[in-house]
Amino acid sequence: MEERIIQAIEAIVGAENIQTEATDLYTYGYDASPEFHHEPDLVVAPASKDEIIQILSVCRDNRVPIVARGSGSNLSGGTVPIAGGIVLLFTRMNRILEFDQQNLTLTVEPGVITQEINQYIADSGLFFPPDPGSMQISTIGGNISENSGGLRALKYGVTKDYVLGLEVVMANGDVIETGGKLTKDVAGLNLTQLMIGSEGTLGIITKAILKLMPKPEANKTMIATYRTMTAAAQSVSDIIAAKITPATMEFLDQVTIKAVEDFAHVGLPTDAAAMLLIQQDGHPREIDADIETMAAICRDGAAIDVQVARDEAHGAQLMAARRTALSALARVKPTTVLEDATVPRSEIAALVNFINETAQKYQLYIGTFGHAGDGNMHPTCLTDLRDEAEMKRVHQAFAEIYQKTIELGGTVTGEHGVGLAKLPYLPWKLGAGGMRADRAIKAALDPDNILNPQKLY
Amino acid sequence: MEERIIQAIEAIVGAENIQTEATDLYTYGYDASPEFHHEPDLVVAPASKDEIIQILSVCRDNRVPIVARGSGSNLSGGTVPIAGGIVLLFTRMNRILEFDQQNLTLTVEPGVITQEINQYIADSGLFFPPDPGSMQISTIGGNISENSGGLRALKYGVTKDYVLGLEVVMANGDVIETGGKLTKDVAGLNLTQLMIGSEGTLGIITKAILKLMPKPEANKTMIATYRTMTAAAQSVSDIIAAKITPATMEFLDQVTIKAVEDFAHVGLPTDAAAMLLIQQDGHPREIDADIETMAAICRDGAAIDVQVARDEAHGAQLMAARRTALSALARVKPTTVLEDATVPRSEIAALVNFINETAQKYQLYIGTFGHAGDGNMHPTCLTDLRDEAEMKRVHQAFAEIYQKTIELGGTVTGEHGVGLAKLPYLPWKLGAGGMRADRAIKAALDPDNILNPQKLY
Repeated sequence: MEERIIQAIEAIVGAENIQTEATDLYTYGYDASPEFHHEPDLVVAPASKDEIIQILSVCRDNRVPIVARGSGSNLSGGTVPIAGGIVLLFTRMNRILEFDQQNLTLTVEPGVITQEINQYIADSGLFFPPDPGSMQISTIGGNISENSGGLRALKYGVTKDYVLGLEVVMANGDVIETGGKLTKDVAGLNLTQLMIGSEGTLGIITKAILKLMPKPEANKTMIATYRTMTAAAQSVSDIIAAKITPATMEFLDQVTIKAVEDFAHVGLPTDAAAMLLIQQDGHPREIDADIETMAAICRDGAAIDVQVARDEAHGAQLMAARRTALSALARVKPTTVLEDATVPRSEIAALVNFINETAQKYQLYIGTFGHAGDGNMHPTCLTDLRDEAEMKRVHQAFAEIYQKTIELGGTVTGEHGVGLAKLPYLPWKLGAGGMRADRAIKAALDPDNILNPQKLY
Repeated sequence: MEERIIQAIEAIVGAENIQTEATDLYTYGYDASPEFHHEPDLVVAPASKDEIIQILSVCRDNRVPIVARGSGSNLSGGTVPIAGGIVLLFTRMNRILEFDQQNLTLTVEPGVITQEINQYIADSGLFFPPDPGSMQISTIGGNISENSGGLRALKYGVTKDYVLGLEVVMANGDVIETGGKLTKDVAGLNLTQLMIGSEGTLGIITKAILKLMPKPEANKTMIATYRTMTAAAQSVSDIIAAKITPATMEFLDQVTIKAVEDFAHVGLPTDAAAMLLIQQDGHPREIDADIETMAAICRDGAAIDVQVARDEAHGAQLMAARRTALSALARVKPTTVLEDATVPRSEIAALVNFINETAQKYQLYIGTFGHAGDGNMHPTCLTDLRDEAEMKRVHQAFAEIYQKTIELGGTVTGEHGVGLAKLPYLPWKLGAGGMRADRAIKAALDPDNILNPQKLY
């Protein structure tokens, strides 16, 4: 990057808010996906949308790529600055701006850590439902840009369902405000939803109005274990057929159960082929009724064992153990390739069985866990980047797994985003027409292609 | 329209599926808004997406506007073919294609009447929550194109929250399939949500995958009456502050109460200045608890009277009476101008008081009813199109009301759409940058500007 460009940016944000050291640039060349790395030329932490407008002007004039980055916990290469240029940090735009208890909204800057949101409103009787696995470190801006999911999606939906409005600096320097503190708003195109999940390719989000919900009074957790994946999937179907919508319905296969138990020591049944971890929340009496019904359904199905957590603390312990799945698996081998195949709920067994067959075929070590209620599975391959032959087999295996996912009516990413990792598979889901439509919108809103280029399209 | 174009269209759909008679063209020049009329040149009822692809090809080659129309029950001029050309009907694309009880989805063609959806799945224990006032006659395609709301939005959301995927014929003839039977899907831009509410300007919807929900076991209804609007609005705030989310929380002012009672004879308190009609659904015990709490809140507030419906039938009768509000008001004078001002819930009293002041200032007869829980108010002016002087005052009054709505953090349309009616006010909500972004997307996806031109942008 030319020195004059660096100086122009420095003049906007101040010398203390740019980073140019080799070690910094190396670090910001990564996100949480293991396979992608490309260094930026400059790392910049602006303090306001006005500074971002000025930075974008410099980027436009000099065709400098700019990649917005939260905590870099995304799993798709989405924030890897593959074309170089600027990585934009929100470490100085991390304030909670307003808590409106009458309209049940929280207005935040993008750099707020997701978990802080629920900590901030903890005493209000309200909560913010989206709970991506990364929430302890990820930013809300990153969650919005990736449309992050989580464990509660079946009942509560994902990030997109809790964003009422956005302030966005567009590539041309326009600042737009979409939506508002409104339950209903049909004035113009739904740019709020177009921006959510667009992975920083259509604009830079500088503010968000989040929707809060009354916090459920209580919750209860249960575990059901199975001899086969198919039996576990049948219980999922049977529970849905009984018109129960649990808050969480997680699936772990034997590889994952063992890794988690070894890591968290919460007494998981390591001999089971599959396990469901189910939580319901709401009014205490209704929870009891739902848990009882679900326990009966699992027992009537082929569950080997059904256990209801002793109390909320025990339930929380089990859920926390589930949240360690990725870390637990990651300990097994040097490299963890975490995937995000998502199918209609009815096809979970077909998908997981195919994953297991494919792992066997390519002699790979794959653990699968995920959100059974959403059909959102995370087959996780434990491997070693340095083993080129094995990595080749990993790529072949996942290409086949995603092909199968599409055949089953699924999608190539449920909650991790396209980034670089899913780019090769994206046309399988969108088709040529869908790719053309996406590209036309990108070209219309970012004609100079400065916003996170070489991604998504 | 040149005869050769009509012949080209006739060759695609057959002579029996085009209409060119003067009376037909006159009729299809209207929607349910009183102030807009423009005749199309041709009315066409295709049988399939393939026919629509061919029709669009003719439209592109000859720069013929094409306006997709459900039942024409929309209230914004959105389906009035203001630039002439073709009105596209879905009377032959009105099949329910698949009911998937495992994934809780219903796949439909756009011409299905909204109410038929719930009739079709009545015995399944599932339901489709969106319930726009027009649902007995409106089509699901129209609802999707307008992102229709309804009475249950506070708890259940609006149409956009129940569309999982779409099949759309784009202006260039591409057929795209967005989303799927998926709870989570972040592959590419959210074209599903971009299409919803785009009022037929970005593509022709030919299929939709709808999300169904377990049907609540029971419901209970109550009425609270007030001496002032402010008192009623306070109860709304207090109920929300108590962390209760009722299924429905409707507001009627005195003008509307009188008109409805005169029409429906259900025993509404015609001397009250304002009335809340509240319904909760769910597990019977929890409903009782919620209704009890809400009744106490209303009584502790300044409610003159609180009545709980005797049973579900009585509750249904009250809700049905509320649904007659528009028809009841429409009987009073020859012309009904129904508006759709929406504010943050906390600003309802400010908005309704301003509406009343404005009505007085301009000597207009305005009744206001609407969805208090959503801040979505329908000030309805009873007037006479033939009285030019009064119509001028009507327009002045509503311009001021929408200006106030924007000042209060609201939007110029909550659920009726922009169409032609809200076009003058749209920039107030979107700003210059928002308008530019919307127009750029329109130009990118419909470069020949054939899809419902002269609307929305």
